[in-house]
Amino acid sequence: MKIGKLVVVGVGLIGGSFALALKAAKAVGTVVGVGRSEANLRRARELGVIDAAGALDGPTLADADLVMVATPVGEMSAVFRALAPHLGPSTTITDGGSTKQDVIAAARRELGAAMPRFVPGHPVAGTEKSGAEAAFADLYRGRKVVLTPLAETDPGALERVRAAWERCGAVVVDLDPAEHDAILASVSHLPHVLAYALVHQVARHPRPERLFAFAAGGFRDFTRIASSHPRMWTDICLANREALLAELDRYGGELARIRGLLERGDAKMLEALFAHARSARDRWLDSGQEQPRDPKS
Amino acid sequence: MKIGKLVVVGVGLIGGSFALALKAAKAVGTVVGVGRSEANLRRARELGVIDAAGALDGPTLADADLVMVATPVGEMSAVFRALAPHLGPSTTITDGGSTKQDVIAAARRELGAAMPRFVPGHPVAGTEKSGAEAAFADLYRGRKVVLTPLAETDPGALERVRAAWERCGAVVVDLDPAEHDAILASVSHLPHVLAYALVHQVARHPRPERLFAFAAGGFRDFTRIASSHPRMWTDICLANREALLAELDRYGGELARIRGLLERGDAKMLEALFAHARSARDRWLDSGQEQPRDPKS
Repeated sequence: MKIGKLVVVGVGLIGGSFALALKAAKAVGTVVGVGRSEANLRRARELGVIDAAGALDGPTLADADLVMVATPVGEMSAVFRALAPHLGPSTTITDGGSTKQDVIAAARRELGAAMPRFVPGHPVAGTEKSGAEAAFADLYRGRKVVLTPLAETDPGALERVRAAWERCGAVVVDLDPAEHDAILASVSHLPHVLAYALVHQVARHPRPERLFAFAAGGFRDFTRIASSHPRMWTDICLANREALLAELDRYGGELARIRGLLERGDAKMLEALFAHARSARDRWLDSGQEQPRDPKS
Repeated sequence: MKIGKLVVVGVGLIGGSFALALKAAKAVGTVVGVGRSEANLRRARELGVIDAAGALDGPTLADADLVMVATPVGEMSAVFRALAPHLGPSTTITDGGSTKQDVIAAARRELGAAMPRFVPGHPVAGTEKSGAEAAFADLYRGRKVVLTPLAETDPGALERVRAAWERCGAVVVDLDPAEHDAILASVSHLPHVLAYALVHQVARHPRPERLFAFAAGGFRDFTRIASSHPRMWTDICLANREALLAELDRYGGELARIRGLLERGDAKMLEALFAHARSARDRWLDSGQEQPRDPKS
């Protein structure tokens, strides 16, 4: 499996690391980057993430074998609309968006005849860093990449995308789009919102510097994801709004339960709840399912 | 400054690391450990954390220069009661509890004539590990240790405890006990509750293994503190209940605000909130006030 020409739309952590991983595996010929920031594309060339900068036009797209759309999910609809008229007849399209149902809906609206060659994907990896500067070839090594193929998805396109991710060292898993969105709302989107909310609360204190001065390692790790890209996470939260609202409401129920135990001074039940959580987390870590630590984070 | 005989009540991460740090600094003669678990005390001797095991009795306490009470805060009242009759006339007592107002109230009830020689303290350091096994000499290096001296606190006792912490490499800060408890509720106790609540929510899912399978680095770091000792954190939450309830309610307000932005699809305000949080966190990290990373975590 070798990709002759790869076009990466959005050369950030996700798209840039995809390009670097395929280059490291010698699984790609030329990589052309497309993006709004000329400075970022220049940096991507300097770093060898891409070989050239292009645009959403015929010269860039008509002879592309694979197009990876790795912009924030809120921009994907416009990107699909802009690239659709220029796609060659055998170009495969995929994406790296953290939500799937909304990206699929956008693709169905915009991609027209190319829709069967669109393979929705989500690499479950990342750091709180962004931009081409943040990209590195090993980001996906040992990580899960979810593909959510549809009834109309062309089997050849699916296999090409699966093979590309496997060359990046990823473990590819197929999921139903709705199940993907519900799972990720629970283990990724909700924690991001919770971390942003906590830092926001501390920052709004009349003397936040007094609070930050006593924040230690627990606070730092708990809030690491609150240093994630605000625009990207706004997009994700809105794109997966229904599932996220359901998780937020469930979480409100958890907090109300704990609040009640605290008010009643119910040490026994509070300790049981904490112990249940600890043992579940420790089982997860022991299972080896935990994704490896980001080398750059 | 050299402590002839140090008694550590509760030879876990906090008390054990205090002993190891003073030993490494050659600032202590003998260390006697007291605790309920004989296996833990044996392990503490094997590891050189303590030199001998003792009890809350005259032979252990009468000639002690310093007693460090490092049990869970819920046990401190009983420990103070048991040790008070056996204290020598010049023994200084301190503690390592994460809450201060309740520990001070317990000391006032139980320590009697020794109360002026009690210096309430809280090393703002730790990992999610527990037991003598988890102790290490560098835990406090560069970390903040809060002392909350009272009107009746003997200046000599205060200086002895301050000097001991400084020999451990810590940065000692004095705070009012109520301010200490409010600050720690915000940047430590609340995040612990939030992390436990999130893991509990995932663990209660009908198929938790499906969710954990897609949990990545963000989830792991966000929930690291949910692997903390359940009994210890139950104690802390109940000991600092009023301040924690206030923080929980404030946090409920933050989540309600975010929920409203999500429901209304207010991308602009949502992004502004996330960006505000990110920049506050990044300023904190850049300020160098962030506590160093735990070498063992």
